Amino acid sequence: MKRYEELSEMLATDIRNGHLAAGSRLPSIRTLTRQHGVSPSTAFAAYYRLEEKGLVRARERSGYYVAGLGRHRLAEPVQTQPRRVPAQVDISELVFAVLGAAQQDDIVPFGSAFPSPDLFPLPRLARSLAAGARQTRPQDTVAGLTQGHPALRQQIALRYLRLGMAQSPDDLVVTHGALEALNLCLSAVAQPGDLIAVESPGFYAGLQALERLQMKALEIPVDPKEGIDLAALAQALKRHPIKACWFMTSFQNPMGASMDEARKRALVALLAQHGVPLIEDDVYGELYFGQRAPLPAKAFDTQGLVMHCSSFSKTLAPGYRIGWVSPGRFGQRIERLKLMTTLSASVPAQMALADYLQHGGYDRHLRRLRHALEAQQDSLLLAIARHFPAGVKVSRPAGGYFLWVEFAAGFDTLRLHREALAQGISLAPGPIFSAHRDFRHCVRLNYGHPWRPELEAAMATLGRLVQQQG
Amino acid sequence: MKRYEELSEMLATDIRNGHLAAGSRLPSIRTLTRQHGVSPSTAFAAYYRLEEKGLVRARERSGYYVAGLGRHRLAEPVQTQPRRVPAQVDISELVFAVLGAAQQDDIVPFGSAFPSPDLFPLPRLARSLAAGARQTRPQDTVAGLTQGHPALRQQIALRYLRLGMAQSPDDLVVTHGALEALNLCLSAVAQPGDLIAVESPGFYAGLQALERLQMKALEIPVDPKEGIDLAALAQALKRHPIKACWFMTSFQNPMGASMDEARKRALVALLAQHGVPLIEDDVYGELYFGQRAPLPAKAFDTQGLVMHCSSFSKTLAPGYRIGWVSPGRFGQRIERLKLMTTLSASVPAQMALADYLQHGGYDRHLRRLRHALEAQQDSLLLAIARHFPAGVKVSRPAGGYFLWVEFAAGFDTLRLHREALAQGISLAPGPIFSAHRDFRHCVRLNYGHPWRPELEAAMATLGRLVQQQG
Repeated sequence: MKRYEELSEMLATDIRNGHLAAGSRLPSIRTLTRQHGVSPSTAFAAYYRLEEKGLVRARERSGYYVAGLGRHRLAEPVQTQPRRVPAQVDISELVFAVLGAAQQDDIVPFGSAFPSPDLFPLPRLARSLAAGARQTRPQDTVAGLTQGHPALRQQIALRYLRLGMAQSPDDLVVTHGALEALNLCLSAVAQPGDLIAVESPGFYAGLQALERLQMKALEIPVDPKEGIDLAALAQALKRHPIKACWFMTSFQNPMGASMDEARKRALVALLAQHGVPLIEDDVYGELYFGQRAPLPAKAFDTQGLVMHCSSFSKTLAPGYRIGWVSPGRFGQRIERLKLMTTLSASVPAQMALADYLQHGGYDRHLRRLRHALEAQQDSLLLAIARHFPAGVKVSRPAGGYFLWVEFAAGFDTLRLHREALAQGISLAPGPIFSAHRDFRHCVRLNYGHPWRPELEAAMATLGRLVQQQG
Repeated sequence: MKRYEELSEMLATDIRNGHLAAGSRLPSIRTLTRQHGVSPSTAFAAYYRLEEKGLVRARERSGYYVAGLGRHRLAEPVQTQPRRVPAQVDISELVFAVLGAAQQDDIVPFGSAFPSPDLFPLPRLARSLAAGARQTRPQDTVAGLTQGHPALRQQIALRYLRLGMAQSPDDLVVTHGALEALNLCLSAVAQPGDLIAVESPGFYAGLQALERLQMKALEIPVDPKEGIDLAALAQALKRHPIKACWFMTSFQNPMGASMDEARKRALVALLAQHGVPLIEDDVYGELYFGQRAPLPAKAFDTQGLVMHCSSFSKTLAPGYRIGWVSPGRFGQRIERLKLMTTLSASVPAQMALADYLQHGGYDRHLRRLRHALEAQQDSLLLAIARHFPAGVKVSRPAGGYFLWVEFAAGFDTLRLHREALAQGISLAPGPIFSAHRDFRHCVRLNYGHPWRPELEAAMATLGRLVQQQG
C-alpha cells in the first residue's frame, strides 16, 4: 500500500466510524503534511482518493470537507421514460392545492421553491435601495421604462462577460422576475394549440403557463446526471410539430440535472436545424458547486433562437422581482408584450440591484451561498440515508437546492404529502412536475435552508411516514 | 344693477381685457370686502356669478382663480357614435408606431400618458424606501407574496374607507401596476373569442389586451360630460353576448368623461341584471378638481361583479409599479393567474408605499397635485383658444390630465401626429383609441406638465400645422 493510500484509508476509517463528522472541515494540505510527515503531493493524492470514494468533497477556495455518508451509499435514479404523446395540460388545480396547503409560516420547508431568505444580504441590499433612490432622476420613473434601466442592463451584461459571453445591454430586457420573462417568451413564439417540449419531470410553472395559454406539452426524458435526452428530443422533433422548447439546462428543477457544455452545444445545434426556439430557464446557473460557472446553452447560439431567462430571485433578492431575458431575435416581440401587460419592472428594485451589483460584493455573497447550499445538500443526503428505506434513489445535483427522491414503484407521494402536512412538513410531490401527473413515487426536497435539529427531526418523521406506507 | 352684479361686471372687464391674467389668483373674499366696502356675502355672490360665466374657477382651500378665456368660448364635443358591430382588434402595431416614435427624452409631451414626474414627491418617497427596507423581515421576501404585503393592503383599505367604502384588506390583491390588474381581470372572466364592451373612444391598452388575448371589442358611445351612454349599453347587452365590460368611470382616458354617481349606480344595476362583470379602471379617480372625490362604480356593487382596479402610478410613484384590484367574486381566479405569471409585486416598492401612505402626507401631496393639474388645464385650454381654429371642440374634464380635441370632419390627426413629431412635439391621435381606428379628426392632449414657454410655443406650432392642413 502506497503512503497516500495508507493516509487515505486512515482518514476513511475516521469518517466511517464518525470520528470525523459529516460536513466538518478536514485539515488543510499544509497541516496534513506537517502532522503525518508526508509531501504535499501525497496529501493531495490522499484527498483525491477520498473524493473518488465520495467520502470527501472539495469546495472552491475553502478546502476539503467530510461528505455525508448518504451520498456514498444512495443510488441515483435513472433516466425518466415519459409517455411520448402530446398532452393537454390540466395541472394547475393540483399545483395550487399542493402549494396552497403548504403556505403556513412555521411549516418545515422541504417543499419550498426558494432558499432560505436568511442566506441573502438584506441589510446590504437595503443600503443599495437607499443609494439607488438617491440616484433616481424624476424622468427615470416614466421614460423608456419597458426595456429596463440602462445601469442595471449594463451590470447584467457584465455578468455575461464573466462567462466569456458578449452580450450588449441594448438587447437585454429586464422583467418582473424570471417567471415573467419565461411567460413573455412563450407568448412571443407560440399560440394557443401549439405544442411545446418540456422536461419530464419539469418545472410546474412551465406546465401552468401552457395550460393558461391553452398550449400542449410534450414531455422529453431527462437523465438526472446529463439532463435532456438529445436522441429522444431529436426523434420528437421529427415526429411532432414542436413550436418551442422550455428547458432548464443547469441544475434543473426538480431533478437537479445539468447538461454539460458539449450537450448544450448539441442541443442548440439540433434546435437550429429545426428552426425551433429554446426558452432557456437558467435561474440556478449561479448556484454551482464546482470550480467554474456552467455556460448556458445561449453561449452556443448563433441564430438568435435561444431566449436566455434568469433572475436575482434565487441568488440574491427574491422579493425584488427582477429578472431578465437575453431574447435573441425575439426582442421586439417580447418587449411589446411586456409593454402591454406590465409596462416595466419596478424602478426602485432595479436601481438598488444596479448599485448592489456594482458595489455590494455579489461574488463574495454567491461564494458563501454556494458553500452553504453544498453543505446543506450533504446534510440532507445524510438524513435521507439515515431515515429513509435503503432502496430509495436520490439525485446528486452539482448545484442548486433541490434533490429528487425516487421511492419504490407504487409508493404514493401525494399521500405522503398529505400525511407530512398534517405533521407540519411540506414537500413537493412528483405529479405536479408532469403534464401526465406521473412521478407519483417521487418527491422533490428543498435543501435551501441552513440545517438545524428541526429539519433532522422532520426527516425522521418523514422516514416513519415512508416506512408506514412502505 | 345690484352691488354684486356691478362688482362682478367690473372684475369680468378686467379679465376680458387681460388686466387679470388667466391662471392668476383673485383677491380673497376678505380683501375684496375691504377694497370695495362690500359685505362678504356680496363678494361671494360676485365670484359665484363670475364662476357661472366660466371666467373664474374656485379651487378647494385655495380661493378663486381667473379661468382661461378658452374654456369660455370653446365648444365641447357631443356624444360619440361608434359603429355598433363587434370588431376583431388589430390596433397594436399602430399604437406601437405612434407611441414608439414619441420616445425621445426632449420631446414636448402632449402625447404622454403620464403627468410630469416633477409633480411627485420623489425625495420623500426615497425616505420611505429606506424606512420600508428597515422594516422588511427576511420572510417578507418569500412568503405569501402573491396577494401583496399586509401593511400595504391595510393602507389601501383605509383609502377606500375615506370614500365611505368598507373594503377588507383580506380581499385586495396588490398588482404590478393597474395595467397588470386590468389584464388579470380580463383573463379571469373571458376567453379567446369572447366579446368585451369598451368605451368609444377608449384606453388603447384595453384594446391591446383584447387583441393579445384574441377577444373582440364592442364600442359603446361616450358623452364627454356624462360618460358611457347607458341606453346604448342596455341595447348592446340585449343584442350581443357581452362577456365583460372594461370601463373607466371617472376622468376617462382619452376624453376625460365622468359618470356621476346616479349613472354609476345605474351602470352597476344594469350589469347585475345581465350578470356581466365590470372591469373598472379607476386610475384617475384621485385627480378630481371638485370638492369631493368621486365614488367609483364599485361603491354600488352588491353582487361582487365589479373588479375595481387602481394604482399609485398616476398620483404618486409611476416607476414603482404598484397597483391593486378589489376583485369582488373573482379574487381567487385573479390571484392564481398572478401567481402563474408574475408571482407578486416588488417588495421594496410595496414596503415604501405602505410607509409613505402612513407617514408621508399623501393627501397634502394630492391636493397640491390636483391644483397644479387644474391650473395646467386652464393654461392648455387658453392655448387652444389662442392657437387653434375657432371651430375646434374641446372636452372639459373635471379631473385627470387629458383633454380631447375634436377638429372638423376630414381633419387627419395621424398626419398632424407625423408633422408634429418632426417638430419635436408628441400627441396622441384619435385612431389609437378605437378598434375601428375611428376618431381620425380627434386628438388627446396631455396637460400633466407644469406650463412653461416651450409648451406655449409648441401649441403655436401645432396651431400652424392645423391651419396648414385645414
